[in-house]
Amino acid sequence: MSQTALIVGAGDNLGSAIARRFAREGLHVVASRRSGDLSKLVAQIHADGGAATGLHSDARDEDAVQQLVETAERIGPIAACVFNVGGNVRFPISETTTRVYRKVWEMCALAGFLVGREVAGRMQARGRGTIMFTGASASLRGNSGFSAFAGGKHALRALAQSMARELGPQGVHVAHVIIDGLIDNPDTKTLFPDLFEARGPDGILNPDDIAEAYWQLHAQPRNAWSFEMDLRPFKEPW
Amino acid sequence: MSQTALIVGAGDNLGSAIARRFAREGLHVVASRRSGDLSKLVAQIHADGGAATGLHSDARDEDAVQQLVETAERIGPIAACVFNVGGNVRFPISETTTRVYRKVWEMCALAGFLVGREVAGRMQARGRGTIMFTGASASLRGNSGFSAFAGGKHALRALAQSMARELGPQGVHVAHVIIDGLIDNPDTKTLFPDLFEARGPDGILNPDDIAEAYWQLHAQPRNAWSFEMDLRPFKEPW
Amino acid sequence: MSQTALIVGAGDNLGSAIARRFAREGLHVVASRRSGDLSKLVAQIHADGGAATGLHSDARDEDAVQQLVETAERIGPIAACVFNVGGNVRFPISETTTRVYRKVWEMCALAGFLVGREVAGRMQARGRGTIMFTGASASLRGNSGFSAFAGGKHALRALAQSMARELGPQGVHVAHVIIDGLIDNPDTKTLFPDLFEARGPDGILNPDDIAEAYWQLHAQPRNAWSFEMDLRPFKEPW
Amino acid sequence: MSQTALIVGAGDNLGSAIARRFAREGLHVVASRRSGDLSKLVAQIHADGGAATGLHSDARDEDAVQQLVETAERIGPIAACVFNVGGNVRFPISETTTRVYRKVWEMCALAGFLVGREVAGRMQARGRGTIMFTGASASLRGNSGFSAFAGGKHALRALAQSMARELGPQGVHVAHVIIDGLIDNPDTKTLFPDLFEARGPDGILNPDDIAEAYWQLHAQPRNAWSFEMDLRPFKEPW
Repeated sequence: MSQTALIVGAGDNLGSAIARRFAREGLHVVASRRSGDLSKLVAQIHADGGAATGLHSDARDEDAVQQLVETAERIGPIAACVFNVGGNVRFPISETTTRVYRKVWEMCALAGFLVGREVAGRMQARGRGTIMFTGASASLRGNSGFSAFAGGKHALRALAQSMARELGPQGVHVAHVIIDGLIDNPDTKTLFPDLFEARGPDGILNPDDIAEAYWQLHAQPRNAWSFEMDLRPFKEPW
Repeated sequence: MSQTALIVGAGDNLGSAIARRFAREGLHVVASRRSGDLSKLVAQIHADGGAATGLHSDARDEDAVQQLVETAERIGPIAACVFNVGGNVRFPISETTTRVYRKVWEMCALAGFLVGREVAGRMQARGRGTIMFTGASASLRGNSGFSAFAGGKHALRALAQSMARELGPQGVHVAHVIIDGLIDNPDTKTLFPDLFEARGPDGILNPDDIAEAYWQLHAQPRNAWSFEMDLRPFKEPW
Repeated sequence: MSQTALIVGAGDNLGSAIARRFAREGLHVVASRRSGDLSKLVAQIHADGGAATGLHSDARDEDAVQQLVETAERIGPIAACVFNVGGNVRFPISETTTRVYRKVWEMCALAGFLVGREVAGRMQARGRGTIMFTGASASLRGNSGFSAFAGGKHALRALAQSMARELGPQGVHVAHVIIDGLIDNPDTKTLFPDLFEARGPDGILNPDDIAEAYWQLHAQPRNAWSFEMDLRPFKEPW
Repeated sequence: MSQTALIVGAGDNLGSAIARRFAREGLHVVASRRSGDLSKLVAQIHADGGAATGLHSDARDEDAVQQLVETAERIGPIAACVFNVGGNVRFPISETTTRVYRKVWEMCALAGFLVGREVAGRMQARGRGTIMFTGASASLRGNSGFSAFAGGKHALRALAQSMARELGPQGVHVAHVIIDGLIDNPDTKTLFPDLFEARGPDGILNPDDIAEAYWQLHAQPRNAWSFEMDLRPFKEPW
């Protein structure tokens, strides 16, 4: 029975790229997203000779997350888990509704907590495994318009750091990746054509190259683990 | 009509000390907590010649917060608001229930957001006012057992920083106070007698001295505002 | 015999304002700078009914610093010391000469170390006293053109934090003030008239209001000490 | 003509491991240290089929650094440069001599500046290259006894961050690696046998595994660069 890589938030871009990267190493990918197509990703991985299963699941729902983790474990022990659910919004404080504030936290932090806790339980029992969380610039500082998003991302980073300190000595590697810049995909190309133009070649993050960093974190031997990595294009102001 | 100081989380210790400090400067204190006695605090302030109103209110409830802010504004324009709701818990990740994780966030962050947003709207219209949030060591880093509490406190700090950057140029001062240590009160004395003994005189934070810092932040002229202050006893390891 | 406040880097603006603020509380100010007039500051303090002594001294010179501290101690025990020597320069890395890189460090960090160490020795023996260091935005992050200045200021902050953690439990309060913005004085008015215009009233830091923060830090009781405060005008982007 | 990897601070342990790692990828290693044997490292690399040159050079000496960089460039354009000079000392502030304070800064920061600036000039002209600096826990916070070492390491990080922000858009990758823990080598084994025992297998950083992280940073495509990575053993408290 092969090991699995559970990718929660397996969207069309970064999530899919991470899924393909881990599949390429022989892990059976369990790709999960709340809605949207998963069949294309699964077909791609199969076409490349890998193994993958697509499962729709709402990561904010405790029962759904427990079921997802159980299903993945039945396929094979989860060796790596990536939590990649987004939720970027920008509103002045006065226009940030309670519904939005709560929803962004549920997507960024509550879902991360549910996935992290359920997967951690399995990995603690085995004394090994990697859990990786996708962060953003807003993980490190708040900014005008980002009360909700920065709140969710800060909470997610606090979760990752708390889990890393607790689980590290038990052999479970918890890491946090800070994506500081726009990711290249059809949507961002359509939304920000001027930025693509201005930045020029290699000026926008390539999902496959980000995925490589997740793989490298997973592959680190336990004598030399990273908790945090930042990734940005060379022309990105920061 | 005098100005008001709205203290949300006016518990028996720090919250009450802040309320008394602001009352001493002539502001009409509106002291709010979800449950527990408020009459003693109000009586104390009256005995000292100040003005105070106690209102029970659940800061996690949007309608309740809107009503609280309206009531305070009818007494007088809110010149200063302190959000001082706690929520410290410590559990290993595997024993952190979803209910606890959500509740701690609601107390630390959602309530802070509701109070901050409602008060900010009034202050933005006037181009002045101070909003202060109580933070903790867990606002700055996660640690084993603190997934929930550090998550809530990180989110609150992200809110404070986002609001400070947005509202500062509009004349509204948003600040974050990091309380790094035990606060002296009957509960902590009972729970941690050895720590009180070990630290000796002045080794534990005095609520009145913390309250002074909140007053000083409020009194800062707008050409020289602080966003963040940390407070700890001289013997505190950090 | 009255206590003294030793101000190292008592320039015409912030340093003088701090000196006046501490003199107003009855401390005998020992105001020191490498060169430039001190007589005007001393005369001002005398005119306000205070006590002050001006001493030219190079804070980068170990012997000079030892002598300065001894002289101040002969006037009265140093209760408060402010290290306020600047050194802001901006050069691309390729144009940063070794001489500039070294000199900026000597002004920012070596001088801070010499003053801090010599004063700390006296304060440790008495188990009380306050040492405050002036920081800048560059204390917290490097930026294009700031290799030298950010290096000096980062080193100074590391000194302050190391000293605070070592000396706090001995009763000596070490603090670091981050001045994040332009300070109002004749030079900055001449150099940046457009910025003054754009920021409008209260848009630029007032030295007397910054000085107040230093005094408040010194006045904190030892059960509630701050290590770090940031100060910026309300319109300052950050 | 092959490209070179310039390793400054090519000591017997981490520096040598990094040198071997880069040699393995076909770069001609120019290994430099102030004193101590280099012939063993060069012989090892040759035995593994790689190319290496050992050069004694004092990285605190401007002329020596310029000559070192010129020599390396004559062998081949410097594609990667690692600055790995240490300088860890621990003294109470009162026992930190001016000589020690200055020397630690010269080793950590001045030498890093000289190497960084000289190499940057060559890489800027070509619009490519990687410069990596070795940091430590003390790069991020000061602590009792670490005034000198934390000062040097903070200054080095400020240099790295300033250079990264300036040179990134020009195609030169500047990165900072935080080594948070003891590195396994004959010296540390002799000095801290109890710690090795307590931490058990994989409890101490392996130089070859650290070296891998440097290589991965160098290999990152420019659309996804990291500025900072931390590395620590899984059992390390942090």
